[in-house]
Amino acid sequence: MSTGHARIAGPGEGIGLDELALATRNHGLPLEALRWDVTPPGLHYVLTHYDIPALDPADWALQVTGAVERPLQLTLADLQRRAGAAARVTLECAGNGRARFEPRPVSQPWLLEAVGTAEWSGTPLAPLLHEAGLSPDAVDVVFTGADHGVERGVEQDYARGLPVTEALRPDALLAWAMDGAALPPQHGAPLRLVVPGWYGMAQVKWLTRIEVLTEPFTGYQNATAYRIATEAGDPGDPVTRIRPRALMSPPGFPDFMTRERFVPAGPVTLTGRAWSGRAPVTAVEVSTDGGASWSGAELAAADPAHPFAWRSWSFAWTAEAGSTDLLVRATDATGEAQPVEQRWNRQGMANNLVQRVPVTVLAR
Amino acid sequence: MSTGHARIAGPGEGIGLDELALATRNHGLPLEALRWDVTPPGLHYVLTHYDIPALDPADWALQVTGAVERPLQLTLADLQRRAGAAARVTLECAGNGRARFEPRPVSQPWLLEAVGTAEWSGTPLAPLLHEAGLSPDAVDVVFTGADHGVERGVEQDYARGLPVTEALRPDALLAWAMDGAALPPQHGAPLRLVVPGWYGMAQVKWLTRIEVLTEPFTGYQNATAYRIATEAGDPGDPVTRIRPRALMSPPGFPDFMTRERFVPAGPVTLTGRAWSGRAPVTAVEVSTDGGASWSGAELAAADPAHPFAWRSWSFAWTAEAGSTDLLVRATDATGEAQPVEQRWNRQGMANNLVQRVPVTVLAR
Repeated sequence: MSTGHARIAGPGEGIGLDELALATRNHGLPLEALRWDVTPPGLHYVLTHYDIPALDPADWALQVTGAVERPLQLTLADLQRRAGAAARVTLECAGNGRARFEPRPVSQPWLLEAVGTAEWSGTPLAPLLHEAGLSPDAVDVVFTGADHGVERGVEQDYARGLPVTEALRPDALLAWAMDGAALPPQHGAPLRLVVPGWYGMAQVKWLTRIEVLTEPFTGYQNATAYRIATEAGDPGDPVTRIRPRALMSPPGFPDFMTRERFVPAGPVTLTGRAWSGRAPVTAVEVSTDGGASWSGAELAAADPAHPFAWRSWSFAWTAEAGSTDLLVRATDATGEAQPVEQRWNRQGMANNLVQRVPVTVLAR
Repeated sequence: MSTGHARIAGPGEGIGLDELALATRNHGLPLEALRWDVTPPGLHYVLTHYDIPALDPADWALQVTGAVERPLQLTLADLQRRAGAAARVTLECAGNGRARFEPRPVSQPWLLEAVGTAEWSGTPLAPLLHEAGLSPDAVDVVFTGADHGVERGVEQDYARGLPVTEALRPDALLAWAMDGAALPPQHGAPLRLVVPGWYGMAQVKWLTRIEVLTEPFTGYQNATAYRIATEAGDPGDPVTRIRPRALMSPPGFPDFMTRERFVPAGPVTLTGRAWSGRAPVTAVEVSTDGGASWSGAELAAADPAHPFAWRSWSFAWTAEAGSTDLLVRATDATGEAQPVEQRWNRQGMANNLVQRVPVTVLAR
């Protein structure tokens, strides 16, 4: 019933109705919304694998179990009596860019927009694990949500294992609020995990259970779904932290249908955001001639208070009448730069190919 | 440069990247969110023709102009000093169902989900028009937004004309708040129009100008875009009020990719919502055998306080192991029922073809 892998679309095969059904349910950040430091409510990207569950906080509790000395059960009120913590974090879906791969792996068909930045608040995870007395042999911590469905033949509650070293980071958070309000249903109410720097699949929503394992978690989302491989038989590498990316707020005004941009000739300030979950962004470069040449953009200073939030960049461009493609690319402190040619994988994961914005510059 | 019409997709032509770009920007209501009387923030459908504008309320003002004795200019503070009003209203995009038409008009490719219900609050429109002294010869009132773009070759600020009789309805509202909070950017901040009962194209966002005309408005959105015609040369009929529709919260749990539903055998309560912008919904019927037979569902009583909000319905079903299609259809007091065969038009408007939910019932 299941190959465990996304089907690869044939040459010239358009987006199917099943992919479209995912695209109309889940949504990206309209790129003009890059203008806000913190994404306004409703504009942050959302990906829900199954259905948004209906959880009544009054009936809900979180289990902490597995390789711990003292299993815990906590209500939302119990959690809210604990020490508070907050973090401004940029989250991105691991599948962002999938529909730009050629050939296209058939799954949630993101183009570029599966990103957003929010202020998450709740309580730190590590003290809770220490209080439960996690085993010194702990390897993975498994976070299970209340969302239930079937994925490539496997019926499951959504569950992801996280290496224990990541779960014990002081900035890993159990969050019940987003941007100062209670979590909206689609973002995991009443409680979700936030692990800054990792792609969205690790940020488990609608949390019901945290289980400590003394061996690696082999569930579907870790072993099968979120992998990077180019050959059908290869188990591949796990998807982990967010690769560097810069995006541009498309300048000027759009055509409704093609989203092509029109810009009056003259001085234009190009702006956008850049981020990486691996290391600080060290450079943003812009090309205004379709990739033939690149120039450094002005990158906002890193804010030590928000190491995992995107940073703004800007670039002064003198637009001359005609047509061109604008490109932008980020490099982070690991030395990794966004590729200008695709680095394909059959799961359609982590495609940080540079953004290309076709623009028609109108004579004044 | 412009035919004024959407291209019609060829036989078997998949969704294109331009349609997908619209689908990832704009988004529908995940149908499990029909469970809420008022749609939670971020789950209400959104359609933005061009870009979400960046408006600073401090710099913003509304012009009331045209065939009036006393043109007005009002700041947001001026408007907020006026009499208050609020309404719970179900809004639906006129293009809802477009991607289910065969052949498919190429535009925003909605399936079923372009709907939502919100509590809008602001000030009534009619007293403002009377205060400006609208001409007794007034025919249309044109509402112009700050969103600017090109559509099928026509550069424009989004603008829609509304018949003066509709603009003078006591329940037509200039809204600055949604669900008790300031309008989010994507829903028209700082001010939008809400005309209960009409499809979304009439609910102009980011309002900057209200102009009274003594002849019918001939702008692009009225004369070209929002029409219903089957022949290429036919100007067609204008899109106006929302046709009757019922939708079901898909029961059981989904397959991630196909969204097919799995339901354990036994008693299942099917639930959903029904609405019409033309007249009260009088009946909701359900078929559990793929449309061969229909039975009446339980429809919640009309709430006189919210005549233009959807109403809940429920239906007791005993699911037997096997595969079937669930269907639901609404009828309103005009006698109009949702069609079970498509009523095609080349703009892809107002497609209220009944919903069909394929379900696999699992033996217990």
